[in-house]
Amino acid sequence: MADYTAHLIMRPPPKEYCGLFGVSNNDSAAKIAYLGLYALQHRGEESAGIAVWDGKQINSHKATGLVNDVFPPNVIDQLKGSLAIGHVRYSTTGSSTIKNAQPIHIVCKQGPIAIGHNGNLVNSLHLRKSLEKQGAIFQSTTDSEIIVHLISRSKHKVFEKALLESLAQIKGSYSLIILVPKKIIAVRDPQGFRPLVIGKVDNSFIVASETCALDLVNARYLRDVEAGEIVILDEKGLHSWKPEQLQSGFLSYCIFEHIYFARPDSIVFGKNVYEIREALGRTLAKNHPADADIVVPVPDSGVTAAIGYAHQSGLPFEMGMIRNHYVGRTFIQPSQQLRDLGVKIKLNPVKSVLKGKKVVVVDDSIVRGTTSQARIKTVKDAGAKEVHLRISCPPHRHPCFYGIDFAHSSELIASRNNTEQIRNFIGADTLEYLTVEELLSVEGEDKDKYCSACFTGKYPVKCKKPEGKYCLECQKI
Amino acid sequence: MADYTAHLIMRPPPKEYCGLFGVSNNDSAAKIAYLGLYALQHRGEESAGIAVWDGKQINSHKATGLVNDVFPPNVIDQLKGSLAIGHVRYSTTGSSTIKNAQPIHIVCKQGPIAIGHNGNLVNSLHLRKSLEKQGAIFQSTTDSEIIVHLISRSKHKVFEKALLESLAQIKGSYSLIILVPKKIIAVRDPQGFRPLVIGKVDNSFIVASETCALDLVNARYLRDVEAGEIVILDEKGLHSWKPEQLQSGFLSYCIFEHIYFARPDSIVFGKNVYEIREALGRTLAKNHPADADIVVPVPDSGVTAAIGYAHQSGLPFEMGMIRNHYVGRTFIQPSQQLRDLGVKIKLNPVKSVLKGKKVVVVDDSIVRGTTSQARIKTVKDAGAKEVHLRISCPPHRHPCFYGIDFAHSSELIASRNNTEQIRNFIGADTLEYLTVEELLSVEGEDKDKYCSACFTGKYPVKCKKPEGKYCLECQKI
Amino acid sequence: MADYTAHLIMRPPPKEYCGLFGVSNNDSAAKIAYLGLYALQHRGEESAGIAVWDGKQINSHKATGLVNDVFPPNVIDQLKGSLAIGHVRYSTTGSSTIKNAQPIHIVCKQGPIAIGHNGNLVNSLHLRKSLEKQGAIFQSTTDSEIIVHLISRSKHKVFEKALLESLAQIKGSYSLIILVPKKIIAVRDPQGFRPLVIGKVDNSFIVASETCALDLVNARYLRDVEAGEIVILDEKGLHSWKPEQLQSGFLSYCIFEHIYFARPDSIVFGKNVYEIREALGRTLAKNHPADADIVVPVPDSGVTAAIGYAHQSGLPFEMGMIRNHYVGRTFIQPSQQLRDLGVKIKLNPVKSVLKGKKVVVVDDSIVRGTTSQARIKTVKDAGAKEVHLRISCPPHRHPCFYGIDFAHSSELIASRNNTEQIRNFIGADTLEYLTVEELLSVEGEDKDKYCSACFTGKYPVKCKKPEGKYCLECQKI
Amino acid sequence: MADYTAHLIMRPPPKEYCGLFGVSNNDSAAKIAYLGLYALQHRGEESAGIAVWDGKQINSHKATGLVNDVFPPNVIDQLKGSLAIGHVRYSTTGSSTIKNAQPIHIVCKQGPIAIGHNGNLVNSLHLRKSLEKQGAIFQSTTDSEIIVHLISRSKHKVFEKALLESLAQIKGSYSLIILVPKKIIAVRDPQGFRPLVIGKVDNSFIVASETCALDLVNARYLRDVEAGEIVILDEKGLHSWKPEQLQSGFLSYCIFEHIYFARPDSIVFGKNVYEIREALGRTLAKNHPADADIVVPVPDSGVTAAIGYAHQSGLPFEMGMIRNHYVGRTFIQPSQQLRDLGVKIKLNPVKSVLKGKKVVVVDDSIVRGTTSQARIKTVKDAGAKEVHLRISCPPHRHPCFYGIDFAHSSELIASRNNTEQIRNFIGADTLEYLTVEELLSVEGEDKDKYCSACFTGKYPVKCKKPEGKYCLECQKI
Repeated sequence: MADYTAHLIMRPPPKEYCGLFGVSNNDSAAKIAYLGLYALQHRGEESAGIAVWDGKQINSHKATGLVNDVFPPNVIDQLKGSLAIGHVRYSTTGSSTIKNAQPIHIVCKQGPIAIGHNGNLVNSLHLRKSLEKQGAIFQSTTDSEIIVHLISRSKHKVFEKALLESLAQIKGSYSLIILVPKKIIAVRDPQGFRPLVIGKVDNSFIVASETCALDLVNARYLRDVEAGEIVILDEKGLHSWKPEQLQSGFLSYCIFEHIYFARPDSIVFGKNVYEIREALGRTLAKNHPADADIVVPVPDSGVTAAIGYAHQSGLPFEMGMIRNHYVGRTFIQPSQQLRDLGVKIKLNPVKSVLKGKKVVVVDDSIVRGTTSQARIKTVKDAGAKEVHLRISCPPHRHPCFYGIDFAHSSELIASRNNTEQIRNFIGADTLEYLTVEELLSVEGEDKDKYCSACFTGKYPVKCKKPEGKYCLECQKI
Repeated sequence: MADYTAHLIMRPPPKEYCGLFGVSNNDSAAKIAYLGLYALQHRGEESAGIAVWDGKQINSHKATGLVNDVFPPNVIDQLKGSLAIGHVRYSTTGSSTIKNAQPIHIVCKQGPIAIGHNGNLVNSLHLRKSLEKQGAIFQSTTDSEIIVHLISRSKHKVFEKALLESLAQIKGSYSLIILVPKKIIAVRDPQGFRPLVIGKVDNSFIVASETCALDLVNARYLRDVEAGEIVILDEKGLHSWKPEQLQSGFLSYCIFEHIYFARPDSIVFGKNVYEIREALGRTLAKNHPADADIVVPVPDSGVTAAIGYAHQSGLPFEMGMIRNHYVGRTFIQPSQQLRDLGVKIKLNPVKSVLKGKKVVVVDDSIVRGTTSQARIKTVKDAGAKEVHLRISCPPHRHPCFYGIDFAHSSELIASRNNTEQIRNFIGADTLEYLTVEELLSVEGEDKDKYCSACFTGKYPVKCKKPEGKYCLECQKI
Repeated sequence: MADYTAHLIMRPPPKEYCGLFGVSNNDSAAKIAYLGLYALQHRGEESAGIAVWDGKQINSHKATGLVNDVFPPNVIDQLKGSLAIGHVRYSTTGSSTIKNAQPIHIVCKQGPIAIGHNGNLVNSLHLRKSLEKQGAIFQSTTDSEIIVHLISRSKHKVFEKALLESLAQIKGSYSLIILVPKKIIAVRDPQGFRPLVIGKVDNSFIVASETCALDLVNARYLRDVEAGEIVILDEKGLHSWKPEQLQSGFLSYCIFEHIYFARPDSIVFGKNVYEIREALGRTLAKNHPADADIVVPVPDSGVTAAIGYAHQSGLPFEMGMIRNHYVGRTFIQPSQQLRDLGVKIKLNPVKSVLKGKKVVVVDDSIVRGTTSQARIKTVKDAGAKEVHLRISCPPHRHPCFYGIDFAHSSELIASRNNTEQIRNFIGADTLEYLTVEELLSVEGEDKDKYCSACFTGKYPVKCKKPEGKYCLECQKI
Repeated sequence: MADYTAHLIMRPPPKEYCGLFGVSNNDSAAKIAYLGLYALQHRGEESAGIAVWDGKQINSHKATGLVNDVFPPNVIDQLKGSLAIGHVRYSTTGSSTIKNAQPIHIVCKQGPIAIGHNGNLVNSLHLRKSLEKQGAIFQSTTDSEIIVHLISRSKHKVFEKALLESLAQIKGSYSLIILVPKKIIAVRDPQGFRPLVIGKVDNSFIVASETCALDLVNARYLRDVEAGEIVILDEKGLHSWKPEQLQSGFLSYCIFEHIYFARPDSIVFGKNVYEIREALGRTLAKNHPADADIVVPVPDSGVTAAIGYAHQSGLPFEMGMIRNHYVGRTFIQPSQQLRDLGVKIKLNPVKSVLKGKKVVVVDDSIVRGTTSQARIKTVKDAGAKEVHLRISCPPHRHPCFYGIDFAHSSELIASRNNTEQIRNFIGADTLEYLTVEELLSVEGEDKDKYCSACFTGKYPVKCKKPEGKYCLECQKI
């Protein structure tokens, strides 16, 4: 991958975790979409939206909040029609705002369009400035709004052609789900960064970010929308189109979906997430053993890797920290007396498990290091003799430009510190990460299909300038 | 006005009653705007919004509901800054939707802009189609969105020039209030259809739809924004600009503001609304007397004219119908048993006043006729011997294209029926309207400054085609 | 009335304005009750409640808020049954609390009971202490809870007898509406302080605080529940019972219902409220003329008396102050800059009406004097040359113990000041009240049926001690 | 325990799961209580309430909903004072109603009292009828209301004595937390059915249902409130009183707290819940092995026992079912097409874990059997070759009268079916329960301190009638 190079980026990394869902040919389309979003809620807790085609027009409803709150029964009942798309969006501090909720629902010369996006365009700033120069106005900061602007400017009258013309201009990661009169169109970017699967139940086709959404609505998993594929769902069924312009020749599946983001009961990129995570844990145990008594996960995301670690190491698996699942968003600011409460609110250590023990704690990542520090402190306060922290992926040193919201590069503890420094900061007795090679070995033969730039800094973008020269195109990003 | 002609219109008349408010140079700008909107609530009950400039950026909040509901104290407190604009929007059936709430708050190459509009563009459909052809996307059906699209497409870098360029393209009625970094800009269209006044309190300049909003914030009424004037409020004070392109040479003040729409305690178009309405009532009495015992208004809008009628006629004024001021929006659908309830919910007749009496009922308009019919029935059921309905304006026969939402032309009872037929339909013993001449005589020397097209069909638009020929430009409207 | 004497009272005057409604024999009972409460909303804006008998049990719903807010359609739909009672309660500072909302809905050995009360028991403190001594627990501070405690302690198994036993123990004012299995019972106290009327629509009997509630549901006014009468509504119709214990031999209708509290379109105590108020205005004009140009009411409550004043005096009636009907409960605390805003929020003067005029302002009462002071200031600021305040009742000098919430006696400006001192404080040029004799003359032959203790201090309670001696019983109150 | 006998019960089993919390001597008492309730949320999701003593009076707030929803920051801020008690209540179908929310806050001759109860009085019906006969009124169906009625009827003026008099009359299970002026009183019933612990942080004493609430507020666990102990928290500290009347001589700790109800990170009845559950799993594995490939818990409650089973059996532990933690209360009624959705909404099987495997599923109980049936079906549909269900307690055959809401006895599948019949109904390949002896062996030397009547039918009530005779006292219950 010598011909790829890092970006020069001036702005903070983007924050566009999302979940997508679409269903065709179903009289209960909005209800099905509601259920699908429900299963995808972990992909976005900030806002939720559904748009339906009722045979005459597109109607939509969206709001900030969880799916359950945004869609009380009377609202779902009003969303009539046989085609529906839905979207959930991730909450990031300070931007929990209705204006960025999706689907974006607009009217342009192509007619009415509703669109939901998962991913991140790396040339969005460039496109936005260019569109603004042409007179475009922006009512949100979403990439979806950029994409509909591009569609609306196309000369093509056939929607699919206008869409393709706009897709040819965008770079980065995008799984899209689009509702126009009489059809749903699903797209996955040429490198396939973000997942998108196809399912079927009765006569309805479904597209969704993860298979767990298919499971909930009793749909059968057929296959993935392929990288660079446009899939059309209409009355007649499912149609596939792989325009040449969208064929990149290589893949860049986001490996962090496997490590952390997807639900363990999903199939993502054709693989069982649970199996991958358990294998990560086994590999971690094999290569990074610890002289310990028990293996304890940071719940919920560290559970599967911890199980793998326990199986491989032969150490007993114990739920030494209990997660409080009632944690909501409007938590009272604790008084000074109650400092350090934040960590305990979510996780309470089980003293009887930890007391006097040498403990392997398995977690999926360390971002800023402060949360890990607090957790290790509570584990030690609960009586653990030693804490050996094992992370089921390599250190995060580089920002993601394709849709995963790590902290800003300068905030990533691993971008400024080596492992020993991090260990010292967080207070663990030992700290070990998976290496990039170990991580990729778990993906096996497919390992070249994955983007692991957040660990390596090798971004999966083909630079068109001679090596060693300043890349003007990349700079524009 | 022989060279004006009626429009050929295919679409339903527009529905854009609104109230505008802006305040500069005030640390409590959002609170002042809140109070101003509160005083203007009668101009729009559907949605409310405020945008503020905080020195670095524009922040805004808007939602459906009354001003009080949209802006609880904690929301107002978050809207910091010394410049604020606000907007209230009228509720019309079926479109009570957040997406049409204003101010519209966007970012374009001119920077951030928030804009509120009162009025109606007669060439909005044309502009919208044209903008769509150029690739514009629309997220609402408001004229405000059209105006910002035009601004954003201007080549001019100086905002005021870009604004002027866009104003040169729009036709119809518009009072605008615009917030950009460091200043508020207020505009009134070349014919001055909708009102817009300037006031001052301490070092703050205020612009508002009506003077009642100045009164509430203790501001002094200075003058009106003139037709075709652009007024700029910034740190240094108030600046006026009357670009040649906006000078039309004639005025078209909406006479219905005087008759019905404005609050009686406001000064509108330089005149006291209360005085005008009382004079309309006096004129009505002088020219359309009735052999009756008492004069009863349809509250609240008919009160002032009824007082005038009573004064002129010498008949006693009585509040023979009591209005229930708790009537809200979410009223239970009454069962069949409770039909005709709709009218009574709002107005209950006072039997002791009406019983055995010959009653002059004074109202400000008859639209479809059904409400008048029901009211006359309740007055008669309450024991009135005779009902003589007097209307303080001429019959509405023509749609308004400048921002007043009468019913569609085909629904206006006076467009298809003569006065006797209407009288018969509504069940009054006699029915008389003011004539157009009588109406205009009340406005006195200024009478040519008013648009009364809803009564006359003579729309204040200069047609550019030879008389008798089909006017292509007008047709485009 | 020499044998009546004033109370010695240590506690603040009670605050129990309320509206009552009941309907029998109607499949839409809850909907009808909702409408009835809607018409009675002016009698209580703090909380609303409805209880229904569904053939098997009593169900109820109540909450703080206006009727419209407390009862969205889905809540009304759940209140099934053919008997319903409803209650609205007045808002007084600091006690706007769900626990005092009514109907009180309990279960005791008599079975389930729901009860709503309008009035004020003068021996509630005594009864409460006595009940507490016997072991009663109190979950509210309402008189209704005291009454059900008394009912629940009766040895009688027949509900009506238990009720009567409890009524024999309570003193003061009470109109009650009670729902028990299969029937509604309405009671008015022996002196008839608070109103309660009977109506009929189809096969349903209605009881309500005022006839305006009958009008809204198309019911015909039959008669009042008489003082000391128990009326029973059940499947068979309406039954009357006048137990000897409840016959007092004299009446004490609250004259303030006529002056201020009831809606002008209601019939209260058999008289048209509008007629009474207009006559008060006429009497005021006859005996307390002013050298003035116009008559202006304080809206809405002063309107009818002002009309009477204008008719009698021959001066023109003008709406010189406009009321903002959108005033809600959660108004933003205005900043220092916006002081005196409170008055203007509700009423804005019409400068063109007032400017240069000598104005008679007609109001229905002066309580603390501060509001009148502020209003007169705004009228003068609007340009009035002179303000002659005329009050359509005598000065309030004494607290009411029967259910009208004036301020505490020490706060009543007239309890500490003569008319000249009040005039000076509020800033009027002249100030005149109706005298007690003038007030009673308007009631005519019925004048002895009214309680006017708030003006005279002569409380309508028969003292059982020798004249001139300290009355221990009254003291206990 | 030969001298105990089963109850004859006519009414459905009670439903009073609850969580209690109290804190003294702390300026942030309400905030601490909020956090405590937060940690105890699993004990009651229906409603939450807090009462505080502010030095002058008791104020309280309660509502239906989760702690987070009931107590937004502005509400907590209004609950000032240094003593606070809190309560969360369990949701059971159909009774999710504000009237049963606690603490019950009343005034009686003892003064103001707020009280929260966890448990169930077995003689509540008897007491209620008796109180009703004496004239008591009931506004809820809670045992707390019965208890305050008893207190309010005591002749004793010292509160503790009045309390003791009332405690002498109640039978069954009760952990109580009571707020009166200047102190909090905590009580545990003579047999100690429900847990109640004491903690300390700085100068504040805490009482709470479980130690997890102490952990969250950084309090140290001191000891349990003992069975039959009255603990008083006031300014001076903590005082203990063990009145003779409350000493029963034997204990009846609810063993189901250990099996299911308490949080695994709590210490309950002096024992680590996690350790107990893991030991239950080990015992299950030892005595009820299965020829299987993996051990899978029903999350979350089955996790700890499954870990124990896996450790003992040597089979790998796998999270073969994933729980959706977003499941809320207002779930849309699925259409017919989506039947069986209920089970999947909460738990989704991980196909890659289950496929082709012989699976031991570990759950904590089978109630009606229908949920287990559906779960086993989804596990099999996910590809499991065999399902061996192991339950970490004996079959539930008898209702609980002490506060655990199983289904009605007739609905408990084990009350009508033997294990083979149940196995057949739910579709497992094998089904085994822990025996009562195995369960008690885990409790070890303490085994006689536990109530296991739901398994054995041997209720821990000393019958006062000769053996073999009909027990009139028990019958009254």
